[in-house]
Amino acid sequence: VLIKELIEKKRDGLELTFDEIHFIVDGVTRQTIPDYQISAWLMASLCSGMTEAETAALTEHMLNSGRRLKRCTDRLRVDKHSTGGLGDKTSLILAPLLACLELDVPMLSGRGLGITGGTLDKMEAYPGYRCDLSEAEIESQLRKIGCVITGTTANVAPADKRLYAIRDVTGTVPSVGLITGSIMSKKLAESLDALVLDVKWGSGAFMKSIIEARELESSLVRTGRRMGVITTSLLTDMNQPLGRMVGNACEANEAVDIMKGSGPADAVEVTLALGAELLLSTNRESCPEKARQAIASLLQNGQALHRYQEMIEAQSGRFSEVLPIERSTVVESKNSGWVVSLDGARLGNIVIAMGGGRRSQQDAVNPGVGLEMLVRIGDRVENGQPLLHLFFDGAQPEIDALRDLAREAVGIGPSQKPGPALIVESA
Amino acid sequence: VLIKELIEKKRDGLELTFDEIHFIVDGVTRQTIPDYQISAWLMASLCSGMTEAETAALTEHMLNSGRRLKRCTDRLRVDKHSTGGLGDKTSLILAPLLACLELDVPMLSGRGLGITGGTLDKMEAYPGYRCDLSEAEIESQLRKIGCVITGTTANVAPADKRLYAIRDVTGTVPSVGLITGSIMSKKLAESLDALVLDVKWGSGAFMKSIIEARELESSLVRTGRRMGVITTSLLTDMNQPLGRMVGNACEANEAVDIMKGSGPADAVEVTLALGAELLLSTNRESCPEKARQAIASLLQNGQALHRYQEMIEAQSGRFSEVLPIERSTVVESKNSGWVVSLDGARLGNIVIAMGGGRRSQQDAVNPGVGLEMLVRIGDRVENGQPLLHLFFDGAQPEIDALRDLAREAVGIGPSQKPGPALIVESA
Repeated sequence: VLIKELIEKKRDGLELTFDEIHFIVDGVTRQTIPDYQISAWLMASLCSGMTEAETAALTEHMLNSGRRLKRCTDRLRVDKHSTGGLGDKTSLILAPLLACLELDVPMLSGRGLGITGGTLDKMEAYPGYRCDLSEAEIESQLRKIGCVITGTTANVAPADKRLYAIRDVTGTVPSVGLITGSIMSKKLAESLDALVLDVKWGSGAFMKSIIEARELESSLVRTGRRMGVITTSLLTDMNQPLGRMVGNACEANEAVDIMKGSGPADAVEVTLALGAELLLSTNRESCPEKARQAIASLLQNGQALHRYQEMIEAQSGRFSEVLPIERSTVVESKNSGWVVSLDGARLGNIVIAMGGGRRSQQDAVNPGVGLEMLVRIGDRVENGQPLLHLFFDGAQPEIDALRDLAREAVGIGPSQKPGPALIVESA
Repeated sequence: VLIKELIEKKRDGLELTFDEIHFIVDGVTRQTIPDYQISAWLMASLCSGMTEAETAALTEHMLNSGRRLKRCTDRLRVDKHSTGGLGDKTSLILAPLLACLELDVPMLSGRGLGITGGTLDKMEAYPGYRCDLSEAEIESQLRKIGCVITGTTANVAPADKRLYAIRDVTGTVPSVGLITGSIMSKKLAESLDALVLDVKWGSGAFMKSIIEARELESSLVRTGRRMGVITTSLLTDMNQPLGRMVGNACEANEAVDIMKGSGPADAVEVTLALGAELLLSTNRESCPEKARQAIASLLQNGQALHRYQEMIEAQSGRFSEVLPIERSTVVESKNSGWVVSLDGARLGNIVIAMGGGRRSQQDAVNPGVGLEMLVRIGDRVENGQPLLHLFFDGAQPEIDALRDLAREAVGIGPSQKPGPALIVESA
């Protein structure tokens, strides 16, 4: 087989076979196909689309390009994956919480890409926290604590590492098939029994429309099930940040609030819904209401928080209930009316501009930077009323400009618009 | 501007501006854009298509990535370009012939790509023939002889050299916009007054369908006119080889036959039509019949041949009326009927397999290898009747297999089918 012929076949809209996709993924992993042919195939795949069989084959070969984590206990093994959104700190809560229910949670996570923060960056807000656990360390920690939040090891889906680096610079990220392969190859490498997906849509999410989000959701769920993992999903709203806090330390603190039984209602609700989904899909509970109560009680009684602290300390992090945050400045409304929209992309870019996220992979992140939303869609605001706080490094020269940008991110209209549905549907 | 954003814009089907295309071509030329981003942009351009304005901008910037030949005489400057076909030796005849009519012909040509032979390879069948003339040598030869057939100099369209190398291995050759930019940037670098295009369609051509060929023809003609060159074209048939001979020395010998007033009727007809087209478009003649007679008389009276010999000798080639050809073997029909089709791609690949063309750019070419067609579409054949000769290196181990392949390339049916129209239309 010649890679050129496979590029041409995909370019012409034909379906590649299981073996042909193996040839490509193998060439990606063993570096026998040069970058320029990989990028041409990626663009042809994006433009022509990928079938369900192609997506499944891509996922399977990417998974097999590396090793899977070993099953090291008799407990059921589960995970939650979110497609990413502003202020989404649910993973920090669910990993220790599910471990309290005698489920193993081998959560291999990533760093922030674009406007949505990365779970690893949030965990690293705890000084000393290690995200580079070896396979042996992951196994040992799962045996002892039942949960881990760490980076993918070098052995997990090496094909994805090279493919993603090329996709990132060639405009070939937003393909449902390629996204599915990238996400699911890494999740399947965790050797899971069950996975729940949180697919987000809206201005602060990767998928800006509900139609695109549904397409991705369907692809992810079908691929997971095809590979023998119990896979369910929720389609959730990301037209406004989840919770009040955006930024690494800010979000870690808010996660702790939730694990102390308080915290904002929307973030609590998504946490309950995703956790309950896993208890139902694994038959640990049969009644949705009981499943939610099981999750909620672990937030109320402090057990999730206790396990969270154990996990952080096992990974060499120094836990504190409240991490330090940078100084704050308030952004006030310049008119009166109703909040009708929040521009998530703009809010995310403001956090990046303040040093709380990455423009390129080498950038250092300041964990104390972030923002706090004081209003939500549907709220009434008056002229001069605070809309949000920015937490910024005092040396930030552009803070006035960023405050203006933040103000513009809050759309204010003459009449009330209901807030979007938080949980749209489940699959 | 970021190249990634331009790739995304093209991927999403939007039109790039003149300046954006300049940014890309400049980055191609100055090597500031890596291959993998160029190939992604090429595939996006192929999949999304290119508008007329984009094609014109690409051509202009590719042209300006290098230098144009200087105008060095007061004579009109013309050229003919063919999109390539099996047995097409028209360039060898028209360059010296048009020079006899006091037109300058600065023909910058290429080598064989795929199944269609290259004019430079045909000229190099004359021992010692130089295809690497400098700009000064081109000027000097045009002043003295009025014609030159040589390779594009390093200074002509350097952007095309890099783009073509990437397109060749990434499945991004067959894009009308990209083909137009590649062809026209080099032709416009000749500083022409008039250009005639021979756009070929059929089994032995690059464009397999007449619809694709028309699309390319229209793009080439519009781009040439937009750039201020009198541009006309003929759409011609390539469902069977032009003339009887295919192969470098074979074709050079057949070109000499035509310049001696004989030769096969179809190759003579295309030569007359293309030459006459240029005489009409430059207003050297106003009557089509007179234009054809002017061309024909230069074939009959030996002037074109004399100029051809002068050109070859000026470029250090050793001219002979009949170049040596390898030994021949005959391929006979195994059934009776009517010739209904000739598989040009297969015939071309047989010549390559015998060593008469290139599989990769480094391959040496044996000029004495080739084939002679003894039948044409519409002919009656009987069982055992010779269909073609193969001229092959005696050491060729696969000659029996190639003979079988050649036999299969001749489609024989139960009833007569008229041969395709040689000249379909002109634009």
